[in-house]
Amino acid sequence: MPCLRPGPRLGVVTGSPASIDLPAAVRSAEARARPHLLTTPVVPAAGLSAELGSPVVLKCENLQHTGSFKARGALSKLLSLDAGELDRGVITASTGNHGAAVAYAGTIVGVEPVVVVPEGANPSKLAAIERLGGRVEVLGTDSVESEIGARRLAQEGSLTFVSPYNDLAVIGGQGTLGLELLEQVRDLAAVFVAVGGGGLASGVAGIIKAVAPRTAIIGCSPAASAVMYHSLRAGHVLELPSEPTLSDGTAGGVEQGAITFGILEALLDDFVTVEEDDIRRAFLDLIEVEHQLVEGSAAMAYSAARAHATRVSGTTAVILCGGNVGTQNLRGILA
Amino acid sequence: MPCLRPGPRLGVVTGSPASIDLPAAVRSAEARARPHLLTTPVVPAAGLSAELGSPVVLKCENLQHTGSFKARGALSKLLSLDAGELDRGVITASTGNHGAAVAYAGTIVGVEPVVVVPEGANPSKLAAIERLGGRVEVLGTDSVESEIGARRLAQEGSLTFVSPYNDLAVIGGQGTLGLELLEQVRDLAAVFVAVGGGGLASGVAGIIKAVAPRTAIIGCSPAASAVMYHSLRAGHVLELPSEPTLSDGTAGGVEQGAITFGILEALLDDFVTVEEDDIRRAFLDLIEVEHQLVEGSAAMAYSAARAHATRVSGTTAVILCGGNVGTQNLRGILA
Repeated sequence: MPCLRPGPRLGVVTGSPASIDLPAAVRSAEARARPHLLTTPVVPAAGLSAELGSPVVLKCENLQHTGSFKARGALSKLLSLDAGELDRGVITASTGNHGAAVAYAGTIVGVEPVVVVPEGANPSKLAAIERLGGRVEVLGTDSVESEIGARRLAQEGSLTFVSPYNDLAVIGGQGTLGLELLEQVRDLAAVFVAVGGGGLASGVAGIIKAVAPRTAIIGCSPAASAVMYHSLRAGHVLELPSEPTLSDGTAGGVEQGAITFGILEALLDDFVTVEEDDIRRAFLDLIEVEHQLVEGSAAMAYSAARAHATRVSGTTAVILCGGNVGTQNLRGILA
Repeated sequence: MPCLRPGPRLGVVTGSPASIDLPAAVRSAEARARPHLLTTPVVPAAGLSAELGSPVVLKCENLQHTGSFKARGALSKLLSLDAGELDRGVITASTGNHGAAVAYAGTIVGVEPVVVVPEGANPSKLAAIERLGGRVEVLGTDSVESEIGARRLAQEGSLTFVSPYNDLAVIGGQGTLGLELLEQVRDLAAVFVAVGGGGLASGVAGIIKAVAPRTAIIGCSPAASAVMYHSLRAGHVLELPSEPTLSDGTAGGVEQGAITFGILEALLDDFVTVEEDDIRRAFLDLIEVEHQLVEGSAAMAYSAARAHATRVSGTTAVILCGGNVGTQNLRGILA
């Protein structure tokens, strides 16, 4: 499990990229979205705490509306739009948690978002998006093609395209989770957070580094798909292939010019990668010992904490970023 | 899904059996055990609320220490013992949540409880009991024989036998969950609670009926093993066979002379039974829609609420009484 910044000294990164006021973005998102968000519970990780001999807690964002943190960013974004923008409509491209979150946020602001998905997308996920209030449109044969299609539709119809992570209002929304953590956990030494596009990690680091700079923020990605990790090592966003991973919520590429790149470069104390076998073991331990049903990306963060939390002293928080595993996936992982 | 007291009027039972001061038992358990208990979260049941068109919340007792409400009763009981009793030791008989809870409570009061189990008990459950601090002793070939053995050892060695439900200190401990619910949920119209021996339902009804008598307490059991249900219909404790059920945590017989019988007779507003197919469907919906990993008894309560919660107006709470499903069981249920 390699690290970007190996070594025992954590909690020392305090910089932030010029021209982005992340704490302000988080606080304004908090003001907009709080009435529609759940303050998700923090519970002790009995098994991992005993194993490591130091306190580990789980931030149960798997119990957020729509089953993932994505509801925070989507709500923050849609609530930031003015009446004219809402009238023209919103659109996104995602078969997963972001699509469901935008659909949900749409019901709050009174619009029916268009959620573009590729041909052959999982019908149960599409049903969830529709149940939450989204209108599914099928465009393209994979996620890249459907995002291109969604952006084209947005431009043609003057709709607002809702990015899953490359948008300060979205990142600010994800950061509201960090505000909650600061209130819920005293002596917060480290936070392990899954990184895909980096929206959650950017928001959480953005507020926690401003309020409690000695708290270490440790990003983690599956070794099989760690585009942001390798991009940060290289110093610029790379285009890299991804292997299949149990942490499908964080898989895939990073947009060129993504604002999350500079934020994570400035604010992450460390960044570790996790092997598939370790994710699978964490997934099973979360069921057997911690009684938590999570998706692979959350198990990945738990596994990262297992390998690295002993490097800090104080309480370690693992963000269980989502619980949309589904029974079909679950069967596969348990088999 | 038959009811004991069918009809739309709920929340009207206010009696309590003579000579048992349940509110006092709950409050003294609360005073003893609170420092060692988690206040478990209450979260909206998004799926069931939408389906029923009325608010349903989930009391996530699956996230309690040891993964079930049994920690409450075991802690209350062990913390009620004096130094001499603790010196002589405690013993119980259970391969399940009660055994794990007594083991855990033992670590709090500084004793190593003996947990008697039958031959051939699930090794992973025994490992959990030992991990939590219990000493496993194998006696007998089934749970009846191992309880007889445990009671004999208790008598011979002057140990305290910890009953899973037929003990006012244990019932008082389970009732601390009801105190939490009253603080966490305004406008609490009904509570659906799984009934096996009836300890949880007795404690919860005991305190809620005293503080908020119009809140309906609805017991539920699997149709395949509903000994308390049939006993209440008959007016006395019956000896009945049980069929296998997904709600294994509530399965089995009721002790002759159990104090829970009279309590539930006086305090339950209704009592419903649930078929296996409905429990299985609830279990899958809890995973897919509510993102909750629970054991069968909790899914059973969710299913009961699905069928009967529309009979009340206001917020319905479903107690997710435990989450110790285990990956092996989970594979079986998903198959």
